Amino acid sequence: MGTYKSVAYQNGVLTLIDQRAIPLEKIYLDFKTLDEVVFAIKDMVVRGAPAIGATAAYGMVIGAIESKCETVVAHKKNLITVKKILDASRPTAVNLMWATSRMLEKSACFDCENVQDFIEALTNEAHAIYEEDAQFCQAMGEHGNTLIPTGATILTHCNTGALATVAYGTALGVITEAHRSGKNIRVYADETRPRLQGAKLTAWELKELGIPVTLIPDSVAATLIRDGKIDCIIVGADRIASNGDTANKIGTFMLSALAKVYKVPFYVAAPTSTIDYEMASGDEIEIEERDPQEVTHINDVLVAPLGVDVYNPAFDVTPNENITAIITERGVVKPPFKNNLLNIKP
Amino acid sequence: MGTYKSVAYQNGVLTLIDQRAIPLEKIYLDFKTLDEVVFAIKDMVVRGAPAIGATAAYGMVIGAIESKCETVVAHKKNLITVKKILDASRPTAVNLMWATSRMLEKSACFDCENVQDFIEALTNEAHAIYEEDAQFCQAMGEHGNTLIPTGATILTHCNTGALATVAYGTALGVITEAHRSGKNIRVYADETRPRLQGAKLTAWELKELGIPVTLIPDSVAATLIRDGKIDCIIVGADRIASNGDTANKIGTFMLSALAKVYKVPFYVAAPTSTIDYEMASGDEIEIEERDPQEVTHINDVLVAPLGVDVYNPAFDVTPNENITAIITERGVVKPPFKNNLLNIKP
Repeated sequence: MGTYKSVAYQNGVLTLIDQRAIPLEKIYLDFKTLDEVVFAIKDMVVRGAPAIGATAAYGMVIGAIESKCETVVAHKKNLITVKKILDASRPTAVNLMWATSRMLEKSACFDCENVQDFIEALTNEAHAIYEEDAQFCQAMGEHGNTLIPTGATILTHCNTGALATVAYGTALGVITEAHRSGKNIRVYADETRPRLQGAKLTAWELKELGIPVTLIPDSVAATLIRDGKIDCIIVGADRIASNGDTANKIGTFMLSALAKVYKVPFYVAAPTSTIDYEMASGDEIEIEERDPQEVTHINDVLVAPLGVDVYNPAFDVTPNENITAIITERGVVKPPFKNNLLNIKP
Repeated sequence: MGTYKSVAYQNGVLTLIDQRAIPLEKIYLDFKTLDEVVFAIKDMVVRGAPAIGATAAYGMVIGAIESKCETVVAHKKNLITVKKILDASRPTAVNLMWATSRMLEKSACFDCENVQDFIEALTNEAHAIYEEDAQFCQAMGEHGNTLIPTGATILTHCNTGALATVAYGTALGVITEAHRSGKNIRVYADETRPRLQGAKLTAWELKELGIPVTLIPDSVAATLIRDGKIDCIIVGADRIASNGDTANKIGTFMLSALAKVYKVPFYVAAPTSTIDYEMASGDEIEIEERDPQEVTHINDVLVAPLGVDVYNPAFDVTPNENITAIITERGVVKPPFKNNLLNIKP
């Protein structure tokens, strides 16, 4: 499905779509050395937690091949160094470290007779990480699609598509599945200030997929919701507390509050790995504040008075009472979330 | 008050702050011919309905002086042409045509003995237009200030300040008066996509006035409102229907809906000239759709896929039930607006 792929690997070559060039150009780049993979992560050729995770997994394979270690034991030892190099490329990316840790732990137990078998087993583990993400997204898409009426107009925020994942996406995966199943849907995409992921990435992905899309400034959504022009809202999630409170890109809470007032279904699509069962509520979620320059500068041009104070939170928290359902790879979860999220705990 | 002036006139010279250069530079430009005044309006050296109105009024004076007509009769005839030239500089600016019409009608009745007296009378009429706007804004500021608690944190949207008017401003005039009266206020300014008037102009004006200001992306306001960080919201208006429904910059309705849910006072500040007593409700207000490029391009750089559909309404309509009070130069109007707006009809 789709006419683009964020991550692909074959015979020692990692091929990434260059996300820095989107939406202006569709360029694929090949990465054949560990240094090149580190550059791809650091320079944001690839972005989106699951896409970075898969890239790092293949980076472990490329690092192993490049090392030319002559024994399995030497390979296992070398991978510790490869992991460190990859982890340092983007230290805040949780999924990156999750993927390299899994590769290291699994490979430590590989019972291989020769170096060739070891590389093959390592490659298969990276493929497994890739495939699991693809399968989770596809499962989310199928579960979520049961909630989408035929002919629906759907509003989405930020980017949650196949660029951020390895395929399909989360919220955009549901939208893609609804389109693929012939429901004749159309989408309003919030531009998503300050980083404009909606304008730059979501609008691009939907156009590539042939799904009718209309781009809007974030402040336009309210009127569309009030005027009955939106049948449902689907967003992704950065973190979900055990009671269903959801942290997601700034602007998500605003949509949820308006959806509640005007009785528009509000859905969150995210894999169960996003649910933090240790966290009682969204009050515990720390909100990252990002660089004021994201607001004061656009394409490196100053658009505000020099030195003005800025408040630029990356996320907001949507309270569970504003959420109609949470779509996971293990099914659709409805309120009461505290109980029902426990029921799907992996 | 303040450290800048949008419009000033003396001895045949119109001095405008160059609004194209804000927020990067504070530059004043002199305009001494009709052609130069037309350029100032056309090229948006000056913007904001009342500021354009005053500029056009002084443009009539400059056009008269430049004509070197030798009789009062010749001057009166010449002004018809001057008005046409000014009106054509920005055909959609209602206030421009209102000001040139008033200048033409009043001057047609001037009973002057000589050309010098005629120019003086014409200049006084332009000054009157200027002074009325300044007085209206000051009156709005004083009435509005009665609603502002000491130490208030105020949220505002778009630009409604002394740049758009000849002095003080409407919503920003109330904020300025609250500051001047020692209430120790602080302001959150929405950046106001797509044209970023909040970032470019409001944040600049508040900094110039020494009022503490924090700039935020439009989608941040919702969380601040929910979390009790905003004591009141003040916005301007482009048009108010007789029942109080208010058309204002896109994003205003969103704020009003959230203010209602979280019980934050929501004020509209506008002169009575903004009230359309012929209009029964906001349903009759036609919403102008603006160029998609305002959304897809920032500083002439494409930030969305080429050719993507865009919905870019200039305004939205806030229903009267979301408005706590309307602040006019004739006093503060509270609900029921249908009756109470009639009571202050000029």
